[in-house]
Amino acid sequence: MELKENERIDDLQYKGLKLIQNKDGFCFGIDAVLLSDYAKEMKRAEKVVDLCSGNGIVAVLLSKKVKDIQKIFAVEIQPEVAKLAKKNVKLNALENTIEVLPMDLKEIQKVIPAGSVDTVVVNPPYKAKNSGIINEEDTFTIARHEISCTLEDVIQNSAQILKSGGNFYMVHRPERLVDILSLMRKYKVEPKKMRFVYPNSKMPPNLLLIEGVRSGRAFLKVEKPLYVYQENGEYTGEIYQIYHLKKQVKE
Amino acid sequence: MELKENERIDDLQYKGLKLIQNKDGFCFGIDAVLLSDYAKEMKRAEKVVDLCSGNGIVAVLLSKKVKDIQKIFAVEIQPEVAKLAKKNVKLNALENTIEVLPMDLKEIQKVIPAGSVDTVVVNPPYKAKNSGIINEEDTFTIARHEISCTLEDVIQNSAQILKSGGNFYMVHRPERLVDILSLMRKYKVEPKKMRFVYPNSKMPPNLLLIEGVRSGRAFLKVEKPLYVYQENGEYTGEIYQIYHLKKQVKE
Repeated sequence: MELKENERIDDLQYKGLKLIQNKDGFCFGIDAVLLSDYAKEMKRAEKVVDLCSGNGIVAVLLSKKVKDIQKIFAVEIQPEVAKLAKKNVKLNALENTIEVLPMDLKEIQKVIPAGSVDTVVVNPPYKAKNSGIINEEDTFTIARHEISCTLEDVIQNSAQILKSGGNFYMVHRPERLVDILSLMRKYKVEPKKMRFVYPNSKMPPNLLLIEGVRSGRAFLKVEKPLYVYQENGEYTGEIYQIYHLKKQVKE
Repeated sequence: MELKENERIDDLQYKGLKLIQNKDGFCFGIDAVLLSDYAKEMKRAEKVVDLCSGNGIVAVLLSKKVKDIQKIFAVEIQPEVAKLAKKNVKLNALENTIEVLPMDLKEIQKVIPAGSVDTVVVNPPYKAKNSGIINEEDTFTIARHEISCTLEDVIQNSAQILKSGGNFYMVHRPERLVDILSLMRKYKVEPKKMRFVYPNSKMPPNLLLIEGVRSGRAFLKVEKPLYVYQENGEYTGEIYQIYHLKKQVKE
């Protein structure tokens, strides 16, 4: 595998998976890892769509975390980033499982028929468009701010491609919770499970994981907290487990 | 103070406050105590409305927890329960501060003008009407289920009586979060702060406290968790503090 000057290969420490990242670009964070772990409970995995796929980290992890996963379409709007995702598919020999679609998710229905998808996963830009943008051309900015797509675009397009009863998984920021829940309900992706991620047991949450069900009935389960660090500054057992690191409690 | 056969007086352990409760009726729980503590941060307290007031516990606690509180209207639909609330006002010599309104909150605007209230607090029935009701006449059932008023009635009427910028405080169940946030936004009581109450650090939350601001801008702060019990089964320091019990850390 040929690497560009600004690229590096990271070992994902999980079933031999590796990932090429652009050192100068937007590298994956804990949110992508937590999302792929949260979404591994998906009920059906014949046809999965990963939106705002970036370098493909979520799709790559899901390919090994979900038993019997058949096909993942990884949708990424930025052409250079989509190329990197394709390289990552090849690097991990996942060409039969993951297909990268370098396109705008707002046009997804041109490629993926309405009501045909079992599960959608998405790690979208967190920040509303009007919150302090500097450069709309910038790769970082596009990955972080709602420039190419808004939260409403994400949820609306997910709702349209999902089968009735299909799962929707997203990682986002707690401060957008009202938007998230209102829009999910608006587009009939009923929020069913939600988990807040706290840096530790004394701080406010800085991430949330949410599962919706297309046309599901209204009843939300807010799950127990997910803490990242213990009081001594070490990762919690659950994080070790999710990251498949040495101190792993069980697989 | 004359007590009926089924009544008892409880010491609220706070600034000499006492409360008569009906032993056979719906006695106050931790939710009422947590709500009054959460709401004590209200910005203005010249005119406060306590909806679904029950025996008056929240209004009675607020009268001492909020400095410079001028007037609390305690609205309770069940005539017998409203009588008990009046008795509690008298017992605590709070006739100048608390006025009990024995009425349906859906008619509140006949008594309290639109846009005139600084702060609304409410501990409403938690359960949706269609969730397993046995007896619609029963005091317990009315206090717990949305028979006399729905969540939408509560939020809509609160929105109408609140001043722009006025505070709204509610305690409710996490499983109704989607309804809560969607309806608050619908009636322009923007959710601003929310705190989940966990029995302990390993269990899912069973209560939530929420603050909204009438016509506020969209940005929700999800606060650090509130744990009720420590791992050893004892109350946490924060609960001791809220309950003003012996092991109090500070007042």
